[in-house]
Order: sequence, then C-alpha cells, then structure tokens
Amino acid sequence: MDERAALALVGDLVDAAGDDAAVVGSTVVTIDMLHETTDFPAGTTRYTAGWRAVGASLSDVAAMGADATGAVGVYGAPDFESGDVEAFVRGALDVCERVGAEYVGGDLDDHDEFTVATTALGETAAPVTRDGASPGEVVAVTGALGRSAAALDAFAAGETERANDLFRFTPRVAAGVALRGNATAMMDSSDGLARSLHQLAEASGVGFAVEGDAVPVTGELRGSDAAAGAGADSDDRLWRAATFGEDFELVCTLPADAVEAVRGLLDVPLTVVGDVTESGVTLDGEELPDVGYTHGE
Amino acid sequence: MDERAALALVGDLVDAAGDDAAVVGSTVVTIDMLHETTDFPAGTTRYTAGWRAVGASLSDVAAMGADATGAVGVYGAPDFESGDVEAFVRGALDVCERVGAEYVGGDLDDHDEFTVATTALGETAAPVTRDGASPGEVVAVTGALGRSAAALDAFAAGETERANDLFRFTPRVAAGVALRGNATAMMDSSDGLARSLHQLAEASGVGFAVEGDAVPVTGELRGSDAAAGAGADSDDRLWRAATFGEDFELVCTLPADAVEAVRGLLDVPLTVVGDVTESGVTLDGEELPDVGYTHGE
Repeated sequence: MDERAALALVGDLVDAAGDDAAVVGSTVVTIDMLHETTDFPAGTTRYTAGWRAVGASLSDVAAMGADATGAVGVYGAPDFESGDVEAFVRGALDVCERVGAEYVGGDLDDHDEFTVATTALGETAAPVTRDGASPGEVVAVTGALGRSAAALDAFAAGETERANDLFRFTPRVAAGVALRGNATAMMDSSDGLARSLHQLAEASGVGFAVEGDAVPVTGELRGSDAAAGAGADSDDRLWRAATFGEDFELVCTLPADAVEAVRGLLDVPLTVVGDVTESGVTLDGEELPDVGYTHGE
Repeated sequence: MDERAALALVGDLVDAAGDDAAVVGSTVVTIDMLHETTDFPAGTTRYTAGWRAVGASLSDVAAMGADATGAVGVYGAPDFESGDVEAFVRGALDVCERVGAEYVGGDLDDHDEFTVATTALGETAAPVTRDGASPGEVVAVTGALGRSAAALDAFAAGETERANDLFRFTPRVAAGVALRGNATAMMDSSDGLARSLHQLAEASGVGFAVEGDAVPVTGELRGSDAAAGAGADSDDRLWRAATFGEDFELVCTLPADAVEAVRGLLDVPLTVVGDVTESGVTLDGEELPDVGYTHGE
C-alpha cells in the first residue's frame, strides 16, 4: 500500500493522527525522518541538512499555529566525523534560533545511510487543524512556492552554494502564530500545494477554486522546458511550484475580511490564491489532480 | 570518532544535552532511532518492534522522573504492508497504555532498511538529572538486568515467541515518578549497568562500589559458558547482565535512609547494589571497566 493508504490506516488506529503535528495537552509535537537518498541531494552540506531537517519539524509546529519551543534530533551515519556532526548541530541550532526555539540536544545512531530524525515541540492552547475551512472563505499561502524545486535544479546544475542557500528555509512559525486567531484550517506545503489543497478539502469537507495567476512562485524557479516559449515556461513553473512539494510555506483558509488585518501582523507576504468552495479542487476552472510528494508510490 | 566522543562534542555545542531526555520548560522530550540491522534481530515481530521502540523513548522519560504523557513515531520501511504497519502501531499504542501515556500519531518514511524513529514526552517540574549523586548515598536498580541479553539468546536459539516476550519490557515510568522525590541522580540502563555507573560517576563527580552478589539478574538469563561450571556460569551471567545493555531498568542514587519509604511507593523491586563513593567504579573491589553498548566503535 502507498503512504497515504497506510497513513489512513494509522489514522484509524490512532485517534489523534491526521494533522501536521500531534497534540498532547497544550503541547504540539511532530517527528520526521529524512535520509540521504531521497532528501539530501549530493552537495547538501551537513549544516544545511541540520537546518533543513529540524526546520521541517518546526514547519509542522508552525502549521498548527503554535509557538515553537524546542527541538531534538538523531544524527544517523556510518561514522561520526567531528566536522560533520558539528556542522549538523550548528545548522540545527541556527534554525531554532531563527524561530525563537531552543535546540536541546540529540542522539547519534550508527546507520549505513545518512539518516536524520527530528522532533519539534510547540505550545498553543488552540491549535489550528485541517478541518475548519468553510465555503465562502479564501485560501492563502505565505511566501512563495517552488524554492525546493529551484534548489534541486541548482544542485543538478552544480550551483552548490546557491542550492544550499535555497534548501535552508525560514520555518513560518511567526506567520503561524500571527495567523492562528483567524486561520480556520492550516497545514504546510511540504507535500506540494495541490496535495495540501486536497488534504484540507478532505479534512474540512470543502473544495477550492484556485487562480493560477495568483499563486506566488519564487523568482528562483526557472521552467524546466524553457525551449517551449514564455507562456509554456510560465505554466511549467506554476505546475512545478504547485506539485513539487518539499516547500515549507503555510497554506491556510480564513475569512476574506480578515486578510488585511492579518497581513499587518505578518513578517512574510500572504497571498490569497482562491476561494473555499463546496466541493472539488480546481485550478483556473480545471480539476487540479491530487498529485505531489508521496512516499511509497 | 566514536559515539561518546561525538556526543561530548554535541554536549559542548548544546547547553541542554547530556541527560536521558532534554528539558523544555516542564516538558521532557527524547528522540531515538532504531533499525533492523542492529536493534531488531530476525524474528522480532512488528508488534514487538513498535512496543520496544516507543518503550525505549518512554524509558528515557522515566529516567527523568517525569510522568509520561505522549509519544509519536516514524515507521520507515521499503514498503508499507498493512499488517506490518498495523502491528507496529498496536505495539506502540499498547506500550503507551501500559504507562498511562497516549500514542498520538506517526509518520511513514520510505526507507531501504526497516528503521524507526520515536519520540516520547513527559511532564515534571523537577527532572532528575545525572549529576546529583553524593558520596554516602546508595546506588540502586529497579527490576532485574539481563532481559535483553536473554532475548537475544532466545532469538538465536529459535525460541521466537519467548524472545519477543522478553523484548517487550515495561518502561519504568511509575517507578521513576515514585523515585523522583528521593533519587538524587538517575538514568536508564540502556547502555548497560557498567556504563551507566560510569556516566553517573562522571556527571556527579563521584564513584561507585558495587557488590556483585547484590546485582539483580533476571532468571531468564543463562550463562553463555555453562560448561565452565556453576561458579563461572554465575560470574558470566553477572558480567553479561552488567555490560550487555539494551535493558531499560532505572539506575539511581538516593540516601540510604530513604530506600524503605521509596520501596513502599514502587510497583517493582528496588535493589541496592552498592554505595556512592568519592571516586572510581568498582565491582567487588575490582575496577569495573567502562564497557557496554556504544555505537560507532
């Protein structure tokens, strides 16, 4: 079975499963595992790996609208080169500092493949889940999409330093906190915008009508098919930004009349990309397929 | 560098590192990664793996004297067979139920080798760390040592059901809570009694004088060199129980006059195995080497 079917099974067994992070009292907690083959392309520095792995967990905390408080990690590798371990920990410390959390330690594990497990913690009395969207609201995203797709292009092109810069993102913790009073449903875009919309739609029992021109795509992302001309290139960029995943922006729903007030609280752009509808997920009126980043397919 | 040297490096970088679990406010948090090659012998069921992996994290919470509140896990495998995933989650749910915690969800990861990452959370206003032991106190252990060594023997002998039973342990959360008012230093025995004593000695700046006859060894553990006669067999059992590790009992120090009162609060035996001294770690008057379970050697 693929990852989503297996996750549905887990959801049947575990009452609390199904959001970006789990909730225990007022604490939100999330755990992630990343590894070299699928998550860290050749050229990824250990500093970037530490930043990105811990950042991915902090992003899940952000998606709950929680204040990030702390993180821990396990560094699994065939050997523990001191420079590598130190770089990883410095990346973890720095991404935590970026969002006001504390990196409070970690463990090491002897592992054939470089593999990292990370946990982040947050606090909120009222977590924002995926199931609160209502028709008539708008759907919005923070920042711009396509950063990780652009990073992979840069790794492939040998632009290693630029690729590492792109791979280190700011987890949207401050934005999540600013949004939590108004967002009715929220998650991060780590599976891609398309899949995020489908997951919010399913959890909330709603649909989405998204305007392609409104979707913010990072200027760092180039089309993969530039020879096809400017129009095709633009479509290609949008498609990649919407489906590639591994980005860590927030996708949320909120009342249209709350947008301006929320923007005043935010440290990043918040772009309305469409409306919450009764059912169906469309992009420019056409059905947007539920494609994106799924393990195990 | 080996795991301990690398952990010392992490400790230099991360102020909060160095105990069984990290502390964020009144929350204790721990993360562990286990994998098939080194942690789950052939014959380990997925149910046992879920129990044991989450149990190992709960043991770290117990070692801080915290109430266990919740746990999460990542199930990494080359495929997500529904029976395997369900069995794993049921093991995780059951070990949490055993200690009054809630298993609140998990994630899946596509991974060549069966690999599990787990996090457990606990709450306590006054965590018991490793650095509070003083000369004149006694050192004690909960339960009996050697259970995991016995399990490995049983796996090797093809006694799979017995091996799985031995591999599923009760995390000493209730004992940790009962001890926290009196224990001056505490950790779990996952690296083996010998190494635990050395770690407590180093953190507290003390020594230990342990009596071999007092060390509780599970009746499940047989000597590996039975042909050498009863005396040698007994020594061999003690040595294996003290150095094998991968057990999850608590090793703690406390004032001698508190032992009886604490026993009245405990749901498991608490055995005094020796005294806290000024320096050195000895077993029956001989230096006990710092050997046990260390990754990366």
